[in-house]
Amino acid sequence: MLPFSVTILGSSSAQPTTNRFPTSQVVSLNEKLYLIDCGEGAQIQLRRFKIKTGKINHIFISHLHGDHIFGLPGLISTLALGGKKGELHIYAHSELKIMMEHLMKFMNEFVDFKVVYHPLNFKKRSIIHEDSKLTIESFPLKHRIPCCGFLFTEKQHELHLRGDVIDELKISIAGRVAIKGGADYQLTNGQVIPNKKLTFPPDPIRSYAFCTDTVCRKQIIPIIQNVDLLYHEATFADDLSELALKTYHTTARQAAVLASESNVKKLIIGHFSSRYKNVDPLVEEARVIFPNTFPANDGDRFEVGPATKLLL
Amino acid sequence: MLPFSVTILGSSSAQPTTNRFPTSQVVSLNEKLYLIDCGEGAQIQLRRFKIKTGKINHIFISHLHGDHIFGLPGLISTLALGGKKGELHIYAHSELKIMMEHLMKFMNEFVDFKVVYHPLNFKKRSIIHEDSKLTIESFPLKHRIPCCGFLFTEKQHELHLRGDVIDELKISIAGRVAIKGGADYQLTNGQVIPNKKLTFPPDPIRSYAFCTDTVCRKQIIPIIQNVDLLYHEATFADDLSELALKTYHTTARQAAVLASESNVKKLIIGHFSSRYKNVDPLVEEARVIFPNTFPANDGDRFEVGPATKLLL
Repeated sequence: MLPFSVTILGSSSAQPTTNRFPTSQVVSLNEKLYLIDCGEGAQIQLRRFKIKTGKINHIFISHLHGDHIFGLPGLISTLALGGKKGELHIYAHSELKIMMEHLMKFMNEFVDFKVVYHPLNFKKRSIIHEDSKLTIESFPLKHRIPCCGFLFTEKQHELHLRGDVIDELKISIAGRVAIKGGADYQLTNGQVIPNKKLTFPPDPIRSYAFCTDTVCRKQIIPIIQNVDLLYHEATFADDLSELALKTYHTTARQAAVLASESNVKKLIIGHFSSRYKNVDPLVEEARVIFPNTFPANDGDRFEVGPATKLLL
Repeated sequence: MLPFSVTILGSSSAQPTTNRFPTSQVVSLNEKLYLIDCGEGAQIQLRRFKIKTGKINHIFISHLHGDHIFGLPGLISTLALGGKKGELHIYAHSELKIMMEHLMKFMNEFVDFKVVYHPLNFKKRSIIHEDSKLTIESFPLKHRIPCCGFLFTEKQHELHLRGDVIDELKISIAGRVAIKGGADYQLTNGQVIPNKKLTFPPDPIRSYAFCTDTVCRKQIIPIIQNVDLLYHEATFADDLSELALKTYHTTARQAAVLASESNVKKLIIGHFSSRYKNVDPLVEEARVIFPNTFPANDGDRFEVGPATKLLL
C-alpha cells in the first residue's frame, strides 16, 4: 500500500504554547502533500520536521479564525522565495482571497506562481478536489463562524493479479490491465476464466477525517462513519462542557463518544486550550469511552490505515 | 541606572530557519517594553523567552515586508485573549492599518482594546514617541519599499544629590527636587551654594539604534553617531555585495564600516540570509573593521549602556 500519513504541525487552540503551535497538519499520500489549516509558524514547523514545503500545492482552510490562517502569508512568501512555479490551490471561505490580497500587497515582487482560491460550500457536503489516488470532501461543522471539516478518501484500488496464473496463461500487458480493472479473460479456445480466479482483492480503501473547530455535532456521523483515522478537536475537558458549548468547541469526552458512535478505527484529539499544561487527563477522559484515542503533539506522524499507528 | 536592554526574538531574513525566526526585538527600559518589528512567530518567541507579552503597549514597524509584520495579527489576537484593555500603539506605514483591518475581520469578537495606528514619516527624522524616560525617533533607511530605522534615546537624567552635604544643610524635599533639576541653594543667611557643590553628575544618557532593511547608508551616520548599541542588518557577507545592492541590503563588512565611522560602542549584526548555516564568517568579516561586533541570535539579550555586554 502507498504510504498515507498525517503529520501534526500544530496542536494548540487559539493561543500557542511553548510546545504547541496553532493548528496545521500535513496529509501525505504517495509523497503528495496536502496542507490542512495554516496557523502561525506552520512554515517553521514544516522546516523543523523536514517536510518539503515546496511540494505543497493544495491547502485546505477549515475557517478564517486567526489560529488557522495566520501562517499562510509567511508560507506563501517562503514558497515564492523558494522559486515555486505553477499554481497553489487554496480551498477556503471566499473572504480569504480578499484578506490575503491586502496582506500580500508588498510581496508580489517575488511571487512567480498563481494562487487559485476555491470557495468552500459551508451548507452541504461537497467534493472539493480529486486526483488519481484521492477524493477530498468538505462538510459543514458548527462554529462561531462558517467552518468545514475535511474527509480524505482513497479511490478504489486496482485488483491484485495472481502472478502464478497470469504467467501460466502468458497474458499480454493489455490483458493484464483489463483484468486489474475487473475483466474476465477469454482463452483462444473460447473458454472464459472468471476475474476472481485471476486476481486477489484490492487493498482496502483508507480514509482520514479532520474536524475542528466545532461543537460536538452528531450530524457528521454518517460522513465520518468507519474512517481509519479521525482527528477531532477536544479544546476542553468535560468539566468545562458549558464553556465548550458557549465557545462552539468540543470536550474530550464528547469527541470520544462521536468516535465510538461513528465506528472509526482510531481517534486523535487536539486543539487543546493553553490552560492544559499536560493533556493526559483529556486523553484518559476520552479513552474511557474510546480506548484507541491519542493526543496530537507537534511533530507526531500518524499512519492512516487499518492498522493505524503512531509512526514517530 | 535603570535596566535597559534589547532582546532578539528573531534574527533571520525573509526565510526563517530552524534556529532563526524572522525579525523582531523587544527593547526594555525600566520594565516598560517596546516591540520593534513583528515577524511570524514573535508571540511564540516572547513566550519562549518568558517576556510578558501583555506589557507591550508600543510596537514599531520598520516596513511592510512580510518577515517584519506577519506575526502582528497573532500577537494582537493573543493580547486580546489575554484580556488586554486600553490602547495598543502601532507606529508604521499608513497602509498597515488597512492590511490589518482586513485580516482581523473575524477576530474582533474578543478585542477589548483599541489599536491606535501612528503613520510614520519616511522622508525625514521624526520624534514618534516620548515618555518620561525615553525619546523614540524614526529616520529614513533605503529599501525596496519605504523603510525606517528607530533611535531610542534616554532623556536627560537628574543630577545625583551629594547626600552628605544635603543632610548637613537639612535641605527640604522641595529643595532637593529643585537641586536635582540644577538649581543652586540659598542659605537663610543669603549665602548661595552653587549646584555643583550639592550634586554629582547625572548618569550618562544611553541610546540604541535599530537599522533594517536597508542598503548601507552613510546619511544615517549623524543620527546614529555615538550610540551605545547599534543593531544593523548584515544580510550577506561582502562577497555578495552586488546581490546586497540589488536587493537593497547591507553586507557584514559595510555594517562594520558604518559602526566604525559612527563611533558606536557596540554593533550587533543580524537579518542573516538563510544561506548561512553558520554566521561566524560574517562576524569575523565585521570584526576586522569593528572588533566589538556580535551576531544576533534568537534569545540573546544585550544591555544598552557604556559597558554594553551580552547578558544571556
